[in-house]
Amino acid sequence: MINYALLIEYDGTRYNGWQKQGNTPNTIQERFENILFKLCGKKVEIFASGRTDKGVHAKGQVANFKCEIDMHPEEIKDYFNKYLPEDIRIINAKIEDERFHSRLNAKSKTYEYNIATVKPSVFNRKYVYHTEDSVNVEKMKRAAAKLLGTHDFIGFSSVKKTKKSTIRTINSIDILEESGIITIRINGNGFLYNMVRIITGTLFEIGTGKKEAGVIDEVFKLKERSLSGETLPACGLTLESVYY
Amino acid sequence: MINYALLIEYDGTRYNGWQKQGNTPNTIQERFENILFKLCGKKVEIFASGRTDKGVHAKGQVANFKCEIDMHPEEIKDYFNKYLPEDIRIINAKIEDERFHSRLNAKSKTYEYNIATVKPSVFNRKYVYHTEDSVNVEKMKRAAAKLLGTHDFIGFSSVKKTKKSTIRTINSIDILEESGIITIRINGNGFLYNMVRIITGTLFEIGTGKKEAGVIDEVFKLKERSLSGETLPACGLTLESVYY
Repeated sequence: MINYALLIEYDGTRYNGWQKQGNTPNTIQERFENILFKLCGKKVEIFASGRTDKGVHAKGQVANFKCEIDMHPEEIKDYFNKYLPEDIRIINAKIEDERFHSRLNAKSKTYEYNIATVKPSVFNRKYVYHTEDSVNVEKMKRAAAKLLGTHDFIGFSSVKKTKKSTIRTINSIDILEESGIITIRINGNGFLYNMVRIITGTLFEIGTGKKEAGVIDEVFKLKERSLSGETLPACGLTLESVYY
Repeated sequence: MINYALLIEYDGTRYNGWQKQGNTPNTIQERFENILFKLCGKKVEIFASGRTDKGVHAKGQVANFKCEIDMHPEEIKDYFNKYLPEDIRIINAKIEDERFHSRLNAKSKTYEYNIATVKPSVFNRKYVYHTEDSVNVEKMKRAAAKLLGTHDFIGFSSVKKTKKSTIRTINSIDILEESGIITIRINGNGFLYNMVRIITGTLFEIGTGKKEAGVIDEVFKLKERSLSGETLPACGLTLESVYY
């Protein structure tokens, strides 16, 4: 068995996210597994570094699958790119150690969230969240520092009560503003369901003055989802890189 | 009558160009005139700085129309943006002098042509022309200098014999390369049919070594379309700005 790892980008606009779930049609995973069936002559599962939700984009998703077929990674890449729709593309393919697993071995991931404070152009409208509110980026930057480090992030997620750990570490949050686009770039060792969109939503509401920065301490203390900010729309979110 | 001028951007991918022509459906002009009919209660014509062909994009198209309705330009802008499809957008609206005509008064225009020498990402694939050939950008830059100034450009156009003047002036051609994208930016006082796509096609073929730079002098001398380069695909072309 050869373990192939793929570096993948996609425009998530028209998909129901990465992960096949019950009968939900039109997932990105399904697109890959249809091609894998053709390639390997049998059902083969592909594992991504993490699901991305409906409408979320990726510039550096990583996924792996095991297959008996012995092909050069370049051929694997070309094969997929031949059959994938135009909004999904393999950037690179390589052979990994047999034990490599794209999700279990991921050390950290970087996501980017884009908020447009001017009307987005027709060229980037699908990749940003547009607001008419005025946003104080300096306030967002100061508040972001409170999120760094290891915390229980359950209050910044859509996770209901769970036995699994909801403790995660955020390594960095960089916020920059250019030409009316505020970019929030977050690196962490893992993210709970909706965590990036709720963290950016909380920072956004701090930026607009709807919330005070102190709310972050409260959410950590009380673990209460109702205190944190709104879940920003999926379209503004892009999975940038996965680090191993 | 008030003369309104609009600054417009569009993703030309799914349109048959700006200009209504006979029964060709799905032009950008038609989209505007449908809205104008609603706004003014009668047929009103809109004039663009120039037609853009099927599949060509714009970041700074200018168009004007005359209408008796007395509305603030901001209201005009919002009215159009409410009814226009998502891939066409008014950036700005203003009231111009009664004699202003977006095509007749244009002093110069800037077009940009993008050639990708690496496989384009899913995010920019609709806005570049992708080639697998290796391209010598320095050769292109040197050859571009020969195109500057006032010449008869008929050999760099799809214009058949005509009584109208085919003399135009190119003020500048800037060529730069970044992250696998070669951008050719051309400013001139006017462009003949397909002129930008044939000029960039000729520079491209000089860059790949298929043609020598001397071909440019020959095309000027012999006015022979068959000597100049191919017409590059529409998707790589964007009308950037119109100057008055």
